[in-house]
Amino acid sequence: MDKNNSSENQEQEEQVVNPWEVSAKGKIDYDKLIEKFGCQRLDQSIIDRVARLTGRPPHVFLRRAVFFAHRDFNEILDAYERGEKFYLYTGRGPSSEALHLGHLVPFMFTKYLQDAFKVPLVIQLTDDEKCMWKNLTVEESQRLARENAKDIIACGFDASKTFIFSDFDYVGGSFYKNMVKIAKCVTYNKVVGIFGFTGEDHIGKVSFPPVQAAPSFPSSFPHLFTGMDNLRCLIPCAIDQDPYFRMTRDVAPRLGYHKPALIESLFFPALQGETGKMSASDPNSAIYVTDSGKDIKNKINKYAFSGGQDSVENHRKYGANLEVDIPIKYLGFFLEDDAELEYIRTEYGAGRMLTGEVKKQLTEILMEMVERHRRARAAVTDEMVDAFMAVRPLPNMFR
Amino acid sequence: MDKNNSSENQEQEEQVVNPWEVSAKGKIDYDKLIEKFGCQRLDQSIIDRVARLTGRPPHVFLRRAVFFAHRDFNEILDAYERGEKFYLYTGRGPSSEALHLGHLVPFMFTKYLQDAFKVPLVIQLTDDEKCMWKNLTVEESQRLARENAKDIIACGFDASKTFIFSDFDYVGGSFYKNMVKIAKCVTYNKVVGIFGFTGEDHIGKVSFPPVQAAPSFPSSFPHLFTGMDNLRCLIPCAIDQDPYFRMTRDVAPRLGYHKPALIESLFFPALQGETGKMSASDPNSAIYVTDSGKDIKNKINKYAFSGGQDSVENHRKYGANLEVDIPIKYLGFFLEDDAELEYIRTEYGAGRMLTGEVKKQLTEILMEMVERHRRARAAVTDEMVDAFMAVRPLPNMFR
Repeated sequence: MDKNNSSENQEQEEQVVNPWEVSAKGKIDYDKLIEKFGCQRLDQSIIDRVARLTGRPPHVFLRRAVFFAHRDFNEILDAYERGEKFYLYTGRGPSSEALHLGHLVPFMFTKYLQDAFKVPLVIQLTDDEKCMWKNLTVEESQRLARENAKDIIACGFDASKTFIFSDFDYVGGSFYKNMVKIAKCVTYNKVVGIFGFTGEDHIGKVSFPPVQAAPSFPSSFPHLFTGMDNLRCLIPCAIDQDPYFRMTRDVAPRLGYHKPALIESLFFPALQGETGKMSASDPNSAIYVTDSGKDIKNKINKYAFSGGQDSVENHRKYGANLEVDIPIKYLGFFLEDDAELEYIRTEYGAGRMLTGEVKKQLTEILMEMVERHRRARAAVTDEMVDAFMAVRPLPNMFR
Repeated sequence: MDKNNSSENQEQEEQVVNPWEVSAKGKIDYDKLIEKFGCQRLDQSIIDRVARLTGRPPHVFLRRAVFFAHRDFNEILDAYERGEKFYLYTGRGPSSEALHLGHLVPFMFTKYLQDAFKVPLVIQLTDDEKCMWKNLTVEESQRLARENAKDIIACGFDASKTFIFSDFDYVGGSFYKNMVKIAKCVTYNKVVGIFGFTGEDHIGKVSFPPVQAAPSFPSSFPHLFTGMDNLRCLIPCAIDQDPYFRMTRDVAPRLGYHKPALIESLFFPALQGETGKMSASDPNSAIYVTDSGKDIKNKINKYAFSGGQDSVENHRKYGANLEVDIPIKYLGFFLEDDAELEYIRTEYGAGRMLTGEVKKQLTEILMEMVERHRRARAAVTDEMVDAFMAVRPLPNMFR
């Protein structure tokens, strides 16, 4: 969204984070982002509390601070502790055929939350958004939404607790009523401040924020939540989506709803280095769930930015710079064994382990993970997609 | 919409005409409006052509130039002459319980068009618009939409050719897809130019024009027009709605549709005089379909602005000023007998007939008309409303 140079996010020139652009000179400064957005850091006491309340070890994405920020997550936990339930809401903008590893992060984490808290989940596929922002036809956006739904289902969601919907299919009725109620509470100046729209942007863009806001309110899903207007909503997402939900949280009390709570992740770094989110337009910047084992091996060997030294001699002497090393970052996301990760970090950082060895280990982990995903996705039939996307009650959603 | 002082309509200070405000210093200058909007005057040759093509005398609203302007109506007639059909689209913003006579004008005329051309009709109840512009709840807007639907049905529409819908009920699916396609083609600057929105207006207003545009395209009604993307649309409406359809006509070719054609009416004047549209907020400015015979008599006698002289003596001497006389204007709408109207105009204009006599004749006509409407409305059951509003095919809609 190059035109939106007036966005609040660009006032500080060094980094731009909004739902359509994540870029920085150098690394993203997440502390600055937390301060700017006004969310809170997710601290150890909350992680411990999650472990205690769910009776499970905290997810690797919590232990490693991949999900690092939140809004009112503690209130969700307070309510849960009192015996109140909540629901999860996450989504995806279906702009590409194949997902990359970064796309899987929120879904892997959301599946954990669903399993750990035993709560229902709604997943919004914003095919309308992608039709309006990318130059996609309605039909192509809807086709991509269904393809992406297969990848999402392959993450292992429980069909008895999960409703996946395409905006083009589902907008209407109670959902549309909430869109209108939300839109009434937000001025044009406000969305310009939040999203940086300009007068030359089309009005579809201006109309969209209420579409992404509406699933935060239980009454948007009468087949699931009739009579539960008091139900809280927890939104796991990457932090670039925060602007939508800041807007939503402003509006919520005026409509008589709880503000949705958020739990927000870092961006999954590109192979070339941690300067932003991966780009769907550069296939060599990311590992896709459709990549072959050979692709994965080649991409990691060829493109994964290394913090190792330029010669074995120097490497043995100075060790690797873990702060910029992409294989170490990726292992931080996907190597679940804390002790093993710590071992690699120590040995690699001290120069006793070489880049090639670390890349080899990462390659094995990702090959296995992608192969597992491929098998799971191949088992997802059109009937299963229809089942997840059917507008239906979920009688066992809180069990 | 007081805030929209930047509207293009206010550049010429003397008159403001947009979907939310009609006002003028003195009488509306319709010639200026035609020039400004860029529509065409509906001339006698078109009226004669309508009579010839339909085999019926032209409706009184055509003969008296109540419907006085158009866009591409001749193309609709060309197509009709070639044996092609079209559909009618009109609507109402349900902001009040009871309709006044001015509200009936487009529906009376649309019924004539439906009967004369034997074509299907879609009627949009913009409950979403009224919820956003007036301070109405969703529920109240929907209640008013159903109440208004009863008045509309009472105008005598053919259920086998007519689909009435509430936006809150019907927006979604193919209709929503068209909203998105339309919104993609219209910039924010463009709607500011057309409608005069300001930055302090809420984004619901900015989002609404595509909702009113969408029914202009047959694919918004797949239950009626599947496979008929080439079907033309004719929109009878008051000329204040022209801005919506100027926008729609700009967009149509980019989406592969015919531009909707329009046939546009004058505003029905207030009892107090012809300076604009009637106001739903001043009950004494209009005659309502719920008024009793006594109400009608009182309102006409008390409030109907008279062009008669201040004394009988002067009246006999100078005659009435027909240009400003409201009873004469109203008779122009509702006294169907051309010869009788001409007789009254001559006698009254010459001072041989007194204001009281003209008012008495008007009172009788309106009492009968309102009584007829009341009886028709009383016969409209909830089941009939449900039937007209059911999303259903209309197999006989072109017969």
